[in-house]
Amino acid sequence: MPSQAASYQGTNSQRAYHALVERFGRLSALGDAMGLLSWDRSVMMPKGGAGSRATTSAALATFHHDLLTDGQVGDWLDAASEEPDSLSPWEAANLHEMKRSYTHATALSSDLVEALSLAASDCEQTWRGARQESNFAAVEPKLTTLLDLVRQAASAKAEALGVSPYDALLDEYEPDGRSAEIDRLFTDLEGFLPDFLAQVIDHQGDAPPQAEGPFAIATQQAVCRQMMETLGFDFDHGRLDISAHPFCGGTPTDVRITTRYNEDDYYGALLGVIHETGHGLYERGLPQDWAGQPVGHARGMSLHESQSLMMEMQACRSREFMAYAAPVLAQAFNGSGPAWQSEALYKKAIRVERGYIRVDADEVTYPLHVILRYRLEKALIEGRMEAKDLPEAWNSQFQALIGVPVPNDRLGCLQDIHWYDGAWGYFPTYTLGAMTAAQLFASAVQAVPEIPEALSRGDFTPLLGWLRPNVHSLGSSLPTTELLTKATGAPLSTEAFKAHLKKRYLGD
Amino acid sequence: MPSQAASYQGTNSQRAYHALVERFGRLSALGDAMGLLSWDRSVMMPKGGAGSRATTSAALATFHHDLLTDGQVGDWLDAASEEPDSLSPWEAANLHEMKRSYTHATALSSDLVEALSLAASDCEQTWRGARQESNFAAVEPKLTTLLDLVRQAASAKAEALGVSPYDALLDEYEPDGRSAEIDRLFTDLEGFLPDFLAQVIDHQGDAPPQAEGPFAIATQQAVCRQMMETLGFDFDHGRLDISAHPFCGGTPTDVRITTRYNEDDYYGALLGVIHETGHGLYERGLPQDWAGQPVGHARGMSLHESQSLMMEMQACRSREFMAYAAPVLAQAFNGSGPAWQSEALYKKAIRVERGYIRVDADEVTYPLHVILRYRLEKALIEGRMEAKDLPEAWNSQFQALIGVPVPNDRLGCLQDIHWYDGAWGYFPTYTLGAMTAAQLFASAVQAVPEIPEALSRGDFTPLLGWLRPNVHSLGSSLPTTELLTKATGAPLSTEAFKAHLKKRYLGD
Repeated sequence: MPSQAASYQGTNSQRAYHALVERFGRLSALGDAMGLLSWDRSVMMPKGGAGSRATTSAALATFHHDLLTDGQVGDWLDAASEEPDSLSPWEAANLHEMKRSYTHATALSSDLVEALSLAASDCEQTWRGARQESNFAAVEPKLTTLLDLVRQAASAKAEALGVSPYDALLDEYEPDGRSAEIDRLFTDLEGFLPDFLAQVIDHQGDAPPQAEGPFAIATQQAVCRQMMETLGFDFDHGRLDISAHPFCGGTPTDVRITTRYNEDDYYGALLGVIHETGHGLYERGLPQDWAGQPVGHARGMSLHESQSLMMEMQACRSREFMAYAAPVLAQAFNGSGPAWQSEALYKKAIRVERGYIRVDADEVTYPLHVILRYRLEKALIEGRMEAKDLPEAWNSQFQALIGVPVPNDRLGCLQDIHWYDGAWGYFPTYTLGAMTAAQLFASAVQAVPEIPEALSRGDFTPLLGWLRPNVHSLGSSLPTTELLTKATGAPLSTEAFKAHLKKRYLGD
Repeated sequence: MPSQAASYQGTNSQRAYHALVERFGRLSALGDAMGLLSWDRSVMMPKGGAGSRATTSAALATFHHDLLTDGQVGDWLDAASEEPDSLSPWEAANLHEMKRSYTHATALSSDLVEALSLAASDCEQTWRGARQESNFAAVEPKLTTLLDLVRQAASAKAEALGVSPYDALLDEYEPDGRSAEIDRLFTDLEGFLPDFLAQVIDHQGDAPPQAEGPFAIATQQAVCRQMMETLGFDFDHGRLDISAHPFCGGTPTDVRITTRYNEDDYYGALLGVIHETGHGLYERGLPQDWAGQPVGHARGMSLHESQSLMMEMQACRSREFMAYAAPVLAQAFNGSGPAWQSEALYKKAIRVERGYIRVDADEVTYPLHVILRYRLEKALIEGRMEAKDLPEAWNSQFQALIGVPVPNDRLGCLQDIHWYDGAWGYFPTYTLGAMTAAQLFASAVQAVPEIPEALSRGDFTPLLGWLRPNVHSLGSSLPTTELLTKATGAPLSTEAFKAHLKKRYLGD
C-alpha cells in the first residue's frame, strides 16, 4: 500500500518513489475535484454559473499541469527508476504509469496547450451552430485551425513517445494502443460486416410489436434505479441523475451516473443507464489499496468501454436477461400484451438498421461508423487529407461502408463533438471495447457456465464474480494486451466478436 | 479592473501588486472549488463517498494554504506597499485584504494547523454522540484538548495581528471586530432585553390560529421558489436544494441555497429559505468587476448576517409583507379560514417564547442566546474558565438571561456545533448582524419611504435598489464600520434594533 509519509526512510531511489506516491496522490485528488466540477456543470449548474465555473476549472487544470510537470517530478522519476528490484510489481507498474502521465504532460509546451484549449473551445462553440444548420462551411476554418494545432501536438508527442503522430494521440486514451494493430483488426471487421449486415437485415423479419407510451418519467427513474441495483450498483457509493448526454463520472467511491428520459420511450434511457452502470461497476471495482495512485486507475478507454458494453450488449441485450426483465418492466409500466413479452423486448434490443447516427446505432453497424471515423481522422492527422475535404470523404466512404447515402452534414460529418472539441484518436476505442467485451464475456461464460442462466434470474453475481478478479481489481497493473491475454488466453482478436454477432443475429 | 497579465509592465511595486492579483485570483478559484465540493457533500454526495471526499477537500485546502503562505506572497505584499499612491482606493483596499488573509494564514505553524484540524474533527465526531445522549462528560476531554489548541492559535494570531487573543479569533469572521465594542453593545442589550422580553410575553396575548397540515413537500418547494423570485433571486444564477441544515453556498454567479422540509409545517422551510436568500442576494450583488479578488468578497459575517436578517426579520416578518404573502400561501396550500389571514400569519411570525434552542429562537430572545455564548467563549479563550466548567456556567447564566432552567445539556451547552468544531469567535456576529439589519433597514426606509408599501405588494425592487449601492456592490472596499457609517450616518449602535423591537412587539 502506498505510504504518504514525507519523512520516509530508505535509499535515494526509494525516497524518490515515495515522493512520487505523495505527488500523484495529490494529483489524483485534484483530478477528483475536476471531475466533480465537471459532473456538476452537466447536471446541476445554472447556466449563469458557466463563466466563473470555466475560470475555476481552468485554475484547477493549471494546478494539475504545474504539479505534474514540475522539474522535481522528472528527477524523482529518474531516481526511482535506478533500483527497479526494490519495487514490487505493482509499485513498478505504478512508476510506469507515472512516467506515462509525465511524458504526455511534458511533451507539449504551455503555449501549445493553451492554444489548443482555446482553439478547441472556439471550434466547439461554432460547431454547435454549424451542426444545427447543417453548415460545415461555417465551422471549417475553425476546424482547420484546430487540426493544425492537433497535428503539432501529435508531432510533439510522437517525438516524446517514439511512436507515430496518430499513435501518440491514441496513446492518451488507449495506453500502448497502436494503429498497426487497429488496422489489422478493423480490416478484418470491414471484410466481414457489410455482407453480414445485409444478411442480418434480410434475416431479422418484421419489427416486433411496440409498447405504447407515455411512460411516466418517475416510473422510468424507479425502473432504472432498480436495474442498476440488479446489476450490482451500490447507491451508498453512487447516484443516478439527469443530463443532456448520459455519462458516468465521479470517483470509485462515489460513482455519478446520468441519463436522459423521454416520455415516449423508456427503452433508450434504460439501456443507457445499463451501459453507464457497466462503466460505474468497473470504477467501483478498482483496487482500493491503490486508490488515488496511477496504477489504481482504470486501464484505458477500450477496457472501460468493454465494461459498459459487457453490461449493455453482452449481458442485457441477451435473450436470458430479457426473460428476467420483461415481467419487471411490464409490472412497473403496468403493461400487457405482445409488446411486453420477453421475446418482443429481445427482438427490439437486437433490431438492426442502416442509420446515420453513431450514438443511435445498433451493435452490428456501430463498428462501421467507427471504422469510417478512424480512417478519416488518421488521414487528417497524417496530412493525407485536409478539413475542407471532410464532407466529401465522409459521404462517399459512408455509402461504401453502411450502404445508404448521407442526406446532409448534420447527419454526416457534423454529428459528433469529438473532432470539433479536440478529441482526436478516441474513436477506435469504442469498437476495440466492443470486441474486448465479446472476448471477455466468452471467457467468463466458459469459466463460469452458469452465467447465462443466472442472468435470466437477474442475478449478476456470477458475472461480476468473474469480472472483479480478472478485470476490475487489476487497475492499471498490466498493459491492456497482457490483462486480456491473462483473462482470456489470447490477445484481442475479432473472433469472439464475430462469433457473438453470428450467434445473436443469425442464430435463431 | 484587475489585470491577469503576468507580463505586466510597470514599477517593481506595480508588478508586485499585479502578481498578487493573479495569485489571489487563483486562490479564489480554489476557494470556489472547495465551496462547491462542500455544497455537494451536504446536498448530493452518497454516504460512501465521504472518505475519498475528505482526502480531496484536504488536498485542496493544502494547495490553498501553500499558495497563500508561499514566501513570494510576503515579498510581493511588501513591494506592493511601497508606492501606495500608485494604487486606486479599490486597489489599496484589495491589497489591505490580501495582507489580512496572509497574516491570518502565516500566523499559525503548519503543525498547529494540522493539529487543530485533527482535534476539531475528532471532537466534532464525539460531540454528535454526546449531544444525542446529552452526555457532556463524553466530549469534555476532547473539548479540553481542542480548546488548548484554539488558545494556542489565538495567542499566535494575537501576536501577528497585535490584538487580544479573543479578538484575533473574532477577526477571522468579523474583520476589525473588537470585543471592547461588542461588550459595550451587548451590555446595553443585556440591560434592555430581559425586561422587554417579559413585557412582550405579557403583551402578545394568545397564540394565533394554526393552519393544519400536511403540507405537500412539492408544494412547499414551489412556494419557496416563488418567494425567492419575489425577493429578487435569479434562478439562472442559482439553485434551491435540500440539506440537513439550511445554508447558502456556491459563488456569486451560482448561488446554492438549501433548506429542509417538514410536512407538518411549511413555515420553517419558507422562512429559512427567505433567510438564506438574503445571504444569496448579497453574494449575487457583490462587485462583478472585482470578482475573484479579496476586495470583491463579502465584507464579513456580521454584514452577511445583516443581509439574511434584512430579508427574514426586517422585510418578511413584517405586517406589510404578510399582507402580500397570505393570499399567495393560502392559494398554494389551498387553505382558508382564520389561520390563513395575514394578521394571523404576522402574529405567528413574531411569536415570542422563552426557549432553549438558539436556532429556533425568536428575534427577541435570540440576542440573549448569543450574549450567553459570547461571554462563555471569551472566558474560555482568556483562560478564566475551563471546558469542564461549561455546563454549570451555561445553566446558571441561561437562567439569569432567559429566565427558565435548562433541563439537560442537550438543550444546553451541547446544542451548537461551533465550539466542538473549532469555530470560536463566531457567535457574536449573529447579533451584530441583527442590529446592523435594523440600522440599515431604518435608513433604507428613511431614504426610500415607499419600501414598506412596496413589500405589501411583494415588490422588493425599492429595498434591493437601496441595498445594492449602499451594501452589496461595495464588497470589502471599506471596513464594516465605515460602510455602515456611510450608509446610515452612524456606526453600529443598539438604537435602531431596540426601536424596531419596541415598535414591532409592543407597538400594536
